[in-house]
Formats: sequence, C-alpha cells, structure tokens
Amino acid sequence: MAQRGENFRTIWLKPDDPSVVQIIDQRLLPHDYQVHDLRSWQDGLVAIADMYVRGAPLIGATAAWSLYLAAQAGGRAELRIAAAALLKSRPTAVNLHWAIERILTLVDSHEATGDLVERIRQDAQVICDEDIEISRGIGIHGLALLKEISSRKNGATVNILTHCNAGSLATINWGTATAPIYFAHQQGIDIHVWVDETRPRNQGSQLTAWELAANKVPHTLIVDNAGGHLMQHGDVDIVITGTDRTTRCGDVANKIGTYLKALAANDNDIPFYVALPSTTIDWHCRDGIREIPIEQRDPAEVSHIYGIYEGKPVHVRTTANDTPISNYAFDVTPARLVTGLITERGVCEASETGLLGLFPEKAES
Amino acid sequence: MAQRGENFRTIWLKPDDPSVVQIIDQRLLPHDYQVHDLRSWQDGLVAIADMYVRGAPLIGATAAWSLYLAAQAGGRAELRIAAAALLKSRPTAVNLHWAIERILTLVDSHEATGDLVERIRQDAQVICDEDIEISRGIGIHGLALLKEISSRKNGATVNILTHCNAGSLATINWGTATAPIYFAHQQGIDIHVWVDETRPRNQGSQLTAWELAANKVPHTLIVDNAGGHLMQHGDVDIVITGTDRTTRCGDVANKIGTYLKALAANDNDIPFYVALPSTTIDWHCRDGIREIPIEQRDPAEVSHIYGIYEGKPVHVRTTANDTPISNYAFDVTPARLVTGLITERGVCEASETGLLGLFPEKAES
Repeated sequence: MAQRGENFRTIWLKPDDPSVVQIIDQRLLPHDYQVHDLRSWQDGLVAIADMYVRGAPLIGATAAWSLYLAAQAGGRAELRIAAAALLKSRPTAVNLHWAIERILTLVDSHEATGDLVERIRQDAQVICDEDIEISRGIGIHGLALLKEISSRKNGATVNILTHCNAGSLATINWGTATAPIYFAHQQGIDIHVWVDETRPRNQGSQLTAWELAANKVPHTLIVDNAGGHLMQHGDVDIVITGTDRTTRCGDVANKIGTYLKALAANDNDIPFYVALPSTTIDWHCRDGIREIPIEQRDPAEVSHIYGIYEGKPVHVRTTANDTPISNYAFDVTPARLVTGLITERGVCEASETGLLGLFPEKAES
Repeated sequence: MAQRGENFRTIWLKPDDPSVVQIIDQRLLPHDYQVHDLRSWQDGLVAIADMYVRGAPLIGATAAWSLYLAAQAGGRAELRIAAAALLKSRPTAVNLHWAIERILTLVDSHEATGDLVERIRQDAQVICDEDIEISRGIGIHGLALLKEISSRKNGATVNILTHCNAGSLATINWGTATAPIYFAHQQGIDIHVWVDETRPRNQGSQLTAWELAANKVPHTLIVDNAGGHLMQHGDVDIVITGTDRTTRCGDVANKIGTYLKALAANDNDIPFYVALPSTTIDWHCRDGIREIPIEQRDPAEVSHIYGIYEGKPVHVRTTANDTPISNYAFDVTPARLVTGLITERGVCEASETGLLGLFPEKAES
C-alpha cells in the first residue's frame, strides 16, 4: 500500500486506459493488497454485490463508474439495463440510489451518445471529488468534538470507539467516522481508537485496523462483545460510527451491532455520534426500523472466515457444516440514542429539525 | 458423540482406572470429539486454564477432581500446593473457589491419608451428582417461564436467545441456561434458540450449536451483533444466559457481551433471565462492576480462529500480524437489567431481597 494520506483513492480510472476502472479488492485485506480491474458494468455489479468494495459512499461511486462503463459499451440502452441491475445489487445503502439517479438525470438532460460517455466520466469523477470534500467537511466538524474532549481531559488520551469500517476504504478518501480521527491525529491530539472486529465480515479487524495502522493512528482491536465493558469502566470517551442510510428523522441504519453500542453508550452517558455525508440521508424515509430494508446475506459469511494459514490466505469453516445460520447485515439505531450527526455542513441533533437546520433546501421534500 | 440425554457427563473417573479422570477436550468441538485424560492435578490445571473445560460449574468440578488427583499423588502436602495453584487458574468463575474450599474443609475434618483419597473421590462425585440435580432444578423452574410464554403465544414458537455456552458442556449435564430449553423440548413445547456466536472463542457456534443439534433442538446461529436487531423486530421472546459469578445483590458476571444483550432486551421489553446454580453466587460481593475481577486472556484468542480447512482442523490468523488486541473475557450486567434469576430453588428477582428469599440461610453472611 504505497499511496496513503492526501493522495489515497479507493477507485480511479486506469492511467492510460479509460476503458478500465480500478478498485482495491477489499475482500483480500489485510493479508493481500490487490488492484482489481472493472472492465464492464457487470464487473462493477459483482464488485458491489460481492463486496470487493463496500461502504455507502464508495458503493455509490462504484455504481457511477459502472454506468460509465455501461455507456461506453452500449450507450443509453445498456446504461438503462445496467442502472436497473445495479439498483438491486445492495438494498440498504441509499448512496447507490442517489448516485444512479444522479447519472440518469444527467443522461436524460443530454443528447449525443458520443459526448455522453465523456459527460458521465466527468460526473463520476465529480462524485468522487465531492465525496473527498464531504469527508473533509465531516473531518473538520468532527475534529472540533474531539478537541473539546481532549481539552476537557487536559490533553489526556481521547478514546474513540468505532464499529465496522467507515474509513477511507468506505469512501474515496478520509472516510466518514475516521475523518475526524485522521485530522485529530495530524494535529497531534492524543487519540486512541477501539476497533470493533465487526462480525461477520470483520471490516473492523481487517479494514479499519489496516488503515489506522497505515496512518500510524494508535488503536486496539476488540471483539464486538467488549465495547459495553469498556464503556462501563470509563475507557471510551466517544463513539463515532458511519451509516448506510439515515432517515429524515435521524434514525441510523448501519452495520449490524451498531444499535448495541448505541445502547451501551446511552447507558453510560457517553456521546454517540454518527458521521455521514448528506448523500446518505434518505429524505423520503422517516421511521428507520419500519421502513429501511435490511439486507440478509449469505450464511457462509458467518460460517467461514478469511485468514492466514501456513503463510497463505485461506477460507476456513468455523461451524459444524450443518448449522443453520441467519445473517442480517445491518440494524437501525433509533434517533433517541444518537447524540448527534456529523455532516459536511456541521454537527446537528439526530432529528428532522436538526437535519433541516443544516439542509433547509430539503424542507419541502 | 454417542452419549446424550440422561446419561451424558462432561467429566468422569476412567472406568477400571481410578487414577485417571476423563474430560471432553472442548477446544476441539465441533470439528473433533476427543476424550482427554487427566493424570495429575497439573493436567487438571492446564485443562482449566487453557479451556479444555469451561463453564463455571464444570470448572468447579474439574478443580475438585484435580484435588483428588493431587491427594492420590502426594497426600495433604500435594493437595495444598494444588489448591493454591488451581485457585489462580481462572479469576472470574466463583465455583472454582467454592469447590476448592469444599474439598479443603473436608480435608481439614479428616485424619487418615489412605481414607482421604477415597473421601475426596466420593465428594468430587457428589459435587457432580449435585450439579446435575441443580441443573434439573433450574430446568424445572425455567420450564415454567417457557410454558407461560408458549401459552401466551397460543403454542406458537417460543424464540429464546442465549449467549455463550451455559449448556450441558458448561456443567455436568443439562446445563443452566439450556436446562429449561431441553426440558421444554422434551415436553413438546415449540421452541427455537438463537445462538450467539460468542466471540472470541465461539462457544456459541462451536459448543451450544453442537449440543443443541445433538439433542435435535431447533436453533439458528447468529453473530453477536445481531441480537438487538432481532429483538427490535419481535423475533426474541426471552433471553436466558448463564453466569460465572452473581453477586449477593444480583449483578451478573458472564461472558463478554452479555451486558449488551441485556441492554437490548431492556430497550425492547423482552424478559432477560439468568440461570444459575447457587454455587455461582458470591455472597461476599455486592457491586459486580466494581468488585468482580474480569479476566483478560491471550490476544491470540481474538487474532486466531479454529476451523476446518481442506477437511482438517486448523488455526488461522484473521488479523494483520501486528494488530494490537485487547481481550476481556467477561462483563458485568447490573441487576437492574436482569428480569429474574433462575436457580435450583426457584425464580427470584435479581436483588439481595430476591436471593435471600430463596436462600435465607445466607442472611447472616
């Protein structure tokens, strides 16, 4: 992993070959770093559905780039087919819908097919550039929260707990939950991150720990079960997570298990913040528990685990081979348990009033 | 696993060779069933510390049988050395102290060394026989709770969530949390068990799922993160866990993550019960969060996982090899989150008043 910091990207057009989009195959981290080529929108679909890429903002960006590949291959007709298929690739992250609608709106407003490919390329690039600026905004606003805690503790270590990977790898760069962490670390604030393992796919132990280590941010891996105990004993100052979809009223869908951490934070009077780009807000949805579709994924994600055996990456089965398994990927944390939302425009209460205060243009929708 | 049901035992004297105690090496389940010989008290110490056996009642019984092996090897002197070492083998489970003190009291009240070995053998056997009767009592009292839910649901499936393994494998037979489950299943009550995987050692996916399957009890494995989501959606009727130590006031130390499930149950008005033999009550302890020592174990339990690769059992490393790891084994659920305690004498409120109502002989202690 040569590229870190300012120039890091999770998706890019292949230098000297604009027919290929490149991503990091995140399924292989931390044991193997491989760049993977997307040569068709179908490649993009597989990358999203099989989680070569994941994280709401990066899923959106990958969908946009997949539509670029579709337009390149077969113009508007192919683009429509691709959009319909991509929309179904993952149900919970709302950025997928947002990015696809954005590209389709662009397409509807344009005529010539030749130009179209270039225009979609430009817009996919703009989506990525904007996402980086959004992460930067989240980082700046979240940094203020961490500075305040550091100051209250007279400079003693600020302990942050995070769940799953809402890091650089979930966005284009900087991440959502991790943006304030990286900015605080750059400014020399003494921080330490408790990294939830995040079963079943271990995005915490395999992605968040990887990128925090690469950026030299002090961190400790814990199992998902441990956060409550740490909070009871004063070892957590703030929880910051990402989200895959946040409702107009501030309910937060995020990686399964987030709700349990929010309950523990609430029980121990620890602030629980959710960092999100406004692209992750579903303005049409109010009640997250009733309305947000929760993806169920392959039981093999629970029964099998990815690791190193005798020096090589392998998948092993940890359960008996006939154990029945259920695998929900997300849960919803009700707004009442969320201390605040950290957006690119600032920090607000997790409520319709709070969100509309920052995004008044959404008042009518 | 030939022996199930009524005749199942987790520890026994080797037939025709009273110098050897036998256990199941639970570290190898569900992939491999191996009986392991304890030929010295040191073998017993290793079996406890390295978790060939685990579960508060079985830890206590194994300590008692280890003292038998010590007395056989070197009489009273060896027995004192063994007791001191065994006491330190695991800090949280109070049954360890209870069983060792019981044997030491017996030793202090007796004279002849020849007789002594036989007396300890008898008492270790009585500890095991009593534990089975205790589990049976817990099963009968817990069964009433499950019957009541089944009746309220007009016979529809009763969904029980459990964490870790408080099953037959944690006791001598029947288990604590599982005793009501087995009894309900035997009586034809329609039940289904959500089995928490229980990271880091996976006692849920590797032990509880194994024994429920062997007894044909319907069950589904979930990751530890999933319970809150299921509770939010009405898919859990009751939570029953075991405990490694319960205070006089009803605070419950149990496998790390139990506290998070108790919070979720409380947030969704779902009854949260803890099943325990009275040997697990620490009558000298009041405030569990402040007073119960929480064991920290080897980080390798988090970084490495046991599973099957190409048909053979292996350990794989799932994290990067330099990831810092913290591994607390237990947490404490405050009494306010516990709906009730299921003991061999009946069900009571998780409070000093509740416990003394069932165990009035402890009022003075």
